[in-house]
Amino acid sequence: MAGRSADDDRSGTVVTPSAEFPPLTPAEVDALRRVGAHWRVGAPPALPVDPTLDRYRNHPAPGRFSRLAPIALFRPAPGAPAGRDGLVAAERADQPDSPLDRRLGRVRRVLLGPPLASAAVLHERMRKLVALPVLSSDLLSSVAYGPEALLTVLVLAGSGALGLALPLSAGLVLLMVAVGISYRQTIPAYPHGAGSYLVAGDSLGVRAGLTAAAGLMLDYVLTVSVSIAAGVHAITSALPGLTPFAVPLGVLVILLLLAGNLRGVRAAGNLFVLPTYAFVAAVLGLLVVGYLRAAGRGFASVAPPVVPATQGLGLLLVLRAFASGAVSMTGIEAVSNAVPAFRTPEWRNARTTLTWMVAMLVVLFAGLTLLIHLAGLVPRPGETLLSQLARVTFPTGPWYAVVQVTTALILLLAANTAFNDFPRLLFFMARAGHAPRRFLHLGDRLAFGNGLVALAATAIVVFVAFGGHTEKLIPLYAVGVFLAFTLSQSGMVVHWRRHRGGGWRRRALVNGVGAVLSGLVLLTAAVAKFTEGAWVVVVAVPLLVLLFARIHRHYRTLHAALALRPPPADPAPPAAARGPAAGPSGVPAGRSVEGEEVPQELRHLVVVPVVRLNRASMRALAYAVSLGRPTLAVHLAPEDAEADRFREQWRAWGDHVRLETIVSPYRAVVGPLAHYLEALHAAAPDLVLTVVVPEVVLRRPWHRLLHSRTGQRLRRALRALPGVVVTTVPVHVLE
Amino acid sequence: MAGRSADDDRSGTVVTPSAEFPPLTPAEVDALRRVGAHWRVGAPPALPVDPTLDRYRNHPAPGRFSRLAPIALFRPAPGAPAGRDGLVAAERADQPDSPLDRRLGRVRRVLLGPPLASAAVLHERMRKLVALPVLSSDLLSSVAYGPEALLTVLVLAGSGALGLALPLSAGLVLLMVAVGISYRQTIPAYPHGAGSYLVAGDSLGVRAGLTAAAGLMLDYVLTVSVSIAAGVHAITSALPGLTPFAVPLGVLVILLLLAGNLRGVRAAGNLFVLPTYAFVAAVLGLLVVGYLRAAGRGFASVAPPVVPATQGLGLLLVLRAFASGAVSMTGIEAVSNAVPAFRTPEWRNARTTLTWMVAMLVVLFAGLTLLIHLAGLVPRPGETLLSQLARVTFPTGPWYAVVQVTTALILLLAANTAFNDFPRLLFFMARAGHAPRRFLHLGDRLAFGNGLVALAATAIVVFVAFGGHTEKLIPLYAVGVFLAFTLSQSGMVVHWRRHRGGGWRRRALVNGVGAVLSGLVLLTAAVAKFTEGAWVVVVAVPLLVLLFARIHRHYRTLHAALALRPPPADPAPPAAARGPAAGPSGVPAGRSVEGEEVPQELRHLVVVPVVRLNRASMRALAYAVSLGRPTLAVHLAPEDAEADRFREQWRAWGDHVRLETIVSPYRAVVGPLAHYLEALHAAAPDLVLTVVVPEVVLRRPWHRLLHSRTGQRLRRALRALPGVVVTTVPVHVLE
Repeated sequence: MAGRSADDDRSGTVVTPSAEFPPLTPAEVDALRRVGAHWRVGAPPALPVDPTLDRYRNHPAPGRFSRLAPIALFRPAPGAPAGRDGLVAAERADQPDSPLDRRLGRVRRVLLGPPLASAAVLHERMRKLVALPVLSSDLLSSVAYGPEALLTVLVLAGSGALGLALPLSAGLVLLMVAVGISYRQTIPAYPHGAGSYLVAGDSLGVRAGLTAAAGLMLDYVLTVSVSIAAGVHAITSALPGLTPFAVPLGVLVILLLLAGNLRGVRAAGNLFVLPTYAFVAAVLGLLVVGYLRAAGRGFASVAPPVVPATQGLGLLLVLRAFASGAVSMTGIEAVSNAVPAFRTPEWRNARTTLTWMVAMLVVLFAGLTLLIHLAGLVPRPGETLLSQLARVTFPTGPWYAVVQVTTALILLLAANTAFNDFPRLLFFMARAGHAPRRFLHLGDRLAFGNGLVALAATAIVVFVAFGGHTEKLIPLYAVGVFLAFTLSQSGMVVHWRRHRGGGWRRRALVNGVGAVLSGLVLLTAAVAKFTEGAWVVVVAVPLLVLLFARIHRHYRTLHAALALRPPPADPAPPAAARGPAAGPSGVPAGRSVEGEEVPQELRHLVVVPVVRLNRASMRALAYAVSLGRPTLAVHLAPEDAEADRFREQWRAWGDHVRLETIVSPYRAVVGPLAHYLEALHAAAPDLVLTVVVPEVVLRRPWHRLLHSRTGQRLRRALRALPGVVVTTVPVHVLE
Repeated sequence: MAGRSADDDRSGTVVTPSAEFPPLTPAEVDALRRVGAHWRVGAPPALPVDPTLDRYRNHPAPGRFSRLAPIALFRPAPGAPAGRDGLVAAERADQPDSPLDRRLGRVRRVLLGPPLASAAVLHERMRKLVALPVLSSDLLSSVAYGPEALLTVLVLAGSGALGLALPLSAGLVLLMVAVGISYRQTIPAYPHGAGSYLVAGDSLGVRAGLTAAAGLMLDYVLTVSVSIAAGVHAITSALPGLTPFAVPLGVLVILLLLAGNLRGVRAAGNLFVLPTYAFVAAVLGLLVVGYLRAAGRGFASVAPPVVPATQGLGLLLVLRAFASGAVSMTGIEAVSNAVPAFRTPEWRNARTTLTWMVAMLVVLFAGLTLLIHLAGLVPRPGETLLSQLARVTFPTGPWYAVVQVTTALILLLAANTAFNDFPRLLFFMARAGHAPRRFLHLGDRLAFGNGLVALAATAIVVFVAFGGHTEKLIPLYAVGVFLAFTLSQSGMVVHWRRHRGGGWRRRALVNGVGAVLSGLVLLTAAVAKFTEGAWVVVVAVPLLVLLFARIHRHYRTLHAALALRPPPADPAPPAAARGPAAGPSGVPAGRSVEGEEVPQELRHLVVVPVVRLNRASMRALAYAVSLGRPTLAVHLAPEDAEADRFREQWRAWGDHVRLETIVSPYRAVVGPLAHYLEALHAAAPDLVLTVVVPEVVLRRPWHRLLHSRTGQRLRRALRALPGVVVTTVPVHVLE
């Protein structure tokens, strides 16, 4: 049930379509059994129709009102034992319910493919050689903008400050190794997946988990925005003519990613192999050729063009440069999230993959930074540093184009990673009751459609708001990532202390170092880049945590209110379960207003509001009377003359039902009726009032404008009244 | 009932709050009696609560869910005989149902005043001296812009063409007299009110009536726009500094008029007396002083300033000038609409008033036109001709200001006339089923709020679209007015021919002349000013007529579908009533899908969709079982494992209700459920399926975002299914 705390859901990271229908706890089953024991139901009347539809084999023609597709949709569950209840809805049972929707549905099917059955949930296991490119695209693609982000800050202090890039990069490499080792330890400890949300929530408490989740959510949104911005920049660097279309191009790419993920690209793992390896190969080639050239001139560095300083070279600037460069590490956590996707032994394969990934990152990052320094390149608007480097290194031939294309592709894959992870995070949060339950729903393509759309929409807003400029997005990026890193590593320290297995001190130390370093980067990024955009994240994270907590509280309250409790007559003492926080009406908060009810205790009064006597009201009256319960008709008249006239008609009809007329001298209809029902309810609070309202169903939407929809307004007004059941008797009019 | 033709509503122009509840025809009462005779209801169960609430004197405290005000709202109808059914809703029963609405309601009450009871409908009778200013403000105010409209066109052919103004004005005076005499005849023929809509519809058929109504509706909208534009122009002529604010000022005035009319200014008839008489006095004073001055210079006309011709002086230009000048006659029909409002003898008093009005119009119009000619004035932007004339005539002293203020005031009253007539027209149209029924509703201030808002909104759109320029609105104005005149006068010709009373030939001739002259002006206006804006009206009128006809057809179909018919077993042959136009499902068009039903023939199956077992579903199940009819529970599972688990829980509960599980492998919920119910319905079409849906009612709107509202979606999907009744069992959750 949605109302549980995150602690209950340690069970792992398995995504099932049944998550929307969690099983009852033993205590709930027990309460259910006791409630059932109180039901005194005589022999139930025989059903007038076979509910298995077994003898029913004629498929009806679509009715004139049926906006639903014709049926023929049900067959007994295959392999079900004879006589066992079980129908399976065929694919078309899922069909949309209006002509427009049906047309949209067809477009959707072309775009997104036919529905996939629940049984098709993939539990794919990946070889390391496949896992490496799938999981590393986010991490490795960061080198496309990481070194540039570092230099972009340094160059503000003039070209003389560029020499600082080398020691800063060395520091970043140390950080990468430290965080990498720290995560290596996390993997065996959480073999079912060690997302920061789960690890931090598990060890540091729910708040920490939610904080990590908020950081991660912002991280995923920014991964999409930054990767797409950098990818588009890679393209416009090669083809400057496209520069004016950068923003619409980026939006289009995000929409294509959304469509692809709604279609479900999970099976397309192999598709990821090629661009990642191609990118790594292209950059390695670039490095080899570049260093050969540098060797040709005796590793003498080319003097960079003179750039005047616009800011003094203070500590703050250096820290900002460091924090900006640290975005190269985004995506390092991907492996630890995905441990269960590896072949056995999962944790060992995952750990090896992580080692390779970090090694490749270090090689690419350090190699590129040094080579850029040797080539004397300086960030400049309009062309990425990587593009400049490739142009210098490959002045002729197709190699320049290869570098740019593979860069754009791996950045696209990196953005796609967020499309995999964001909805999964929301799923786990929703399962624990921290996010709206709709994120639990697996769509008919087995994709979390709601989460995907939420991500794409937010990423587009961010991308457009920042004009698609990578360098403006970078300050926001680092904070969320390192927040999640810090919490996850701190959580591991607590984890080791708590479990105290062999060598726990050493392990706690390693994770502690990772946590401290990540925390320092987090602080640096938040403080040094606060005014440049980091404040957005600093403000958003607590607000998101508050929102998650409020959502959780709501679901918990609701769960408590709807939980079954044994009836009062039961020997189990129900008073113990009752909190002291009783509301003014005597019902404790977190309870439903209505008490426990069993059918034999329900007393009925059926009320039929009648405006005029026609076929619709006759049907409502006939329906009400046929229930065999005490029935009362109510008529609202605008003036006495009309009330008299109506009573006369009522007598002409035969006065089969007790009639009450209410004169409404101010001509309101819904208000007085609702008040009358409230008064009836107050006079006999134990009665269940069933209000039978006829509803004329019209086929054309514009016809509905011609009617005042009194029925709907009445239903809305009556929603608030406890113990008032509203029954809508439809009358369909052809035209 | 709404489905009647206009012919049924000749009863007159009495506005009653009961119009929303028309009495049944004798045939309908007869059908009602026969239907009632087929009901076989045993002795009805005694009501478990006194519906008169007589013994119930404790007022309940407002519940925590009650968005409704506490009650204490009902008392037995005053003067009702003891034991007679009759409650009267007190004022507060009308109260809005949410805190925001309640606050808005308080603002509304301050602005619009407390509600008025139906009994307060005024049937005020007016003396002639009061009726004259009340009814003539529209007509007389036209002279503020009529002569100018004429000259504005003429001056296009240069100042030399201005001399043509005199013969054209003479023609217009003749037209005024002819139309005036024509309307004089209409009054005694239609003593209950002779609106063009009623007269034309009565004599020339429904289409003609609707055409006149369309013309009148456009006329009313333009009366507001033109009068406000001219009134604002009168003010900005005196105070040119206000010119930039002309458009917002006009919008503000229209909104104030709307607020005043929503408050109900009907009782303010006396308020109308002063400005109208003041305007007439001011203009008469202007004329007297002006002609004295002209006499002083021997009636020699001042030479107008030389204006170069921008167009040739062709026939078209002259016709356009004539048609523009004819807008001076708008409002001449007001008396004939309002005959019942006069003191007895109504028609004679009304006729006398009309004569006075036309006489005053002729004096003011002819006098002003001639004086403007003598003073050699020419229309110029920024100042009205009347303002120029007043400045020339009263160079000093307060008299200039008096003329401008009274002009602005009478134009305001003219606009207000439309606010009285437009909603009344819509009321009569709605009563005949040609306009949406909501225009029948008398609000709690006894004003037709919907019609008033519709008029104000349209007038504001027109006013803003034309930038508040009187001269741009004039071309649209004449067409609608003269369309209504022509149809009304033609209708009178037919009327006389049909009734052939004494002197009918002479009367028909008089009305015929009026019709021909009006028709000529109509044609002239439509053709000569087509490109200047008249095309809008030429296009809009047929579209409106089509819309009215479609609305009428809908209401007629609905009325036929909902009309009571005697049951088939009745000796009366029901086959005769059945048209040949049977739909594919065998039900004739204009019928409801559901057949006649009497309670003893209804067979029930209650279906309870159960998602999970909690208090909400238990309540729904208990409610369903307590009805004592065959009950079936349906569970939708996303996969087999979940279905098995659910069946286990069901058995733990005690298996009190037959359960059917449907596996929905594509995870859709609403679609398969609706299809299953459709299949059940097809298997046993004579069954009434009652679907009992629990609905968790949450107090805070933002909480609703956290739920998928499956119940609502299910209800929407089930609306289309005939014979499926949806019952909503609320569960209220406190927080």
